[in-house]
Amino acid sequence: MERLFEHINKFSEVSEEDLKLIESVVSKKVIQKKDHLLTTGHKCHHKYFILSGCMRSYFVNKKGAEQIVNFGIENWWMTDYDSFVNESISHINIQALENCEVLRLSKSDFDDIVSISPALNNYFRVILEKRHIADQRRIQYMFNMSGEEIFDHFNNSNPDFVQRIPQYMLASYLGFTPEFLSKIRKKKAETGS
Amino acid sequence: MERLFEHINKFSEVSEEDLKLIESVVSKKVIQKKDHLLTTGHKCHHKYFILSGCMRSYFVNKKGAEQIVNFGIENWWMTDYDSFVNESISHINIQALENCEVLRLSKSDFDDIVSISPALNNYFRVILEKRHIADQRRIQYMFNMSGEEIFDHFNNSNPDFVQRIPQYMLASYLGFTPEFLSKIRKKKAETGS
Repeated sequence: MERLFEHINKFSEVSEEDLKLIESVVSKKVIQKKDHLLTTGHKCHHKYFILSGCMRSYFVNKKGAEQIVNFGIENWWMTDYDSFVNESISHINIQALENCEVLRLSKSDFDDIVSISPALNNYFRVILEKRHIADQRRIQYMFNMSGEEIFDHFNNSNPDFVQRIPQYMLASYLGFTPEFLSKIRKKKAETGS
Repeated sequence: MERLFEHINKFSEVSEEDLKLIESVVSKKVIQKKDHLLTTGHKCHHKYFILSGCMRSYFVNKKGAEQIVNFGIENWWMTDYDSFVNESISHINIQALENCEVLRLSKSDFDDIVSISPALNNYFRVILEKRHIADQRRIQYMFNMSGEEIFDHFNNSNPDFVQRIPQYMLASYLGFTPEFLSKIRKKKAETGS
């Protein structure tokens, strides 16, 4: 639980009682690499706090290719917010890319703890602020940067993470083909940039 | 204030006291059409709740064209979250597209009221959830829909709104050229779809 407690403490002023409250409702789960936590067509009843490992959310696009929506690593909450909040059928999949340990929190327990504890409610608000800012930046990059610039930016922002995921998945997340990614990487290796 | 009170009541269980608290810190402002609430290079110190009118946020892209990031109409909070939360220099502009009436809330007052009132904090968390869901849907559409499908989807989701904004701005928001938008509209007029 230490990892989650540290994360909460970083963003909200919580008491021992608040931490005990969230501890009482999350359960630890081990997910094997390649296993799914959510598949398209089902409702997403949980949020998952990643203790170790790496995940992706993706959907199968009209051309039959997997389009990655998000990645999640340690200290991230993974869920399909749309399905989780609106209790609707999900259009995405969530899959472990490495063996993962997560803390699982159900929708009903989430609703309970945010109504009981203002400090935990505040924690989740602050997390959402950060998520919304990241989304807005991503939308702006998609509109304003070339493939190469997006790749550079992503690498500079997430140097360790880039080493952990297959190249074709990074290409999918950034919205370009694996061939285009190879071309950029080759060019950079040649120029040493 | 009634419009804001109704909006808050819709998403959070607030008391008379909570409403009085937010009423005590917001101030009404009238913004003339074409005036800016925020310009690139400045810090965004406020959130604006739109009582009437329509706004856009945009940046000037590398080609010198205005790229629209978001629109805001009645019952929306407009701000640059990145700049507002992180107290950093903004990369976007916020401009009134019609004469607008807004309620203005400063960063320091926002921080105060969410720490004083759990119910208002909850209201802003729920709003952010909705915003994050909208962002995630938008990212998925950008990856998976053709220009025509995005246009149809936007029209069906926001029929009244589409009538209020110039065609070239809608094109910018949706990420295609005005010529492409004209082509789609002409085709639809011909086929009656």
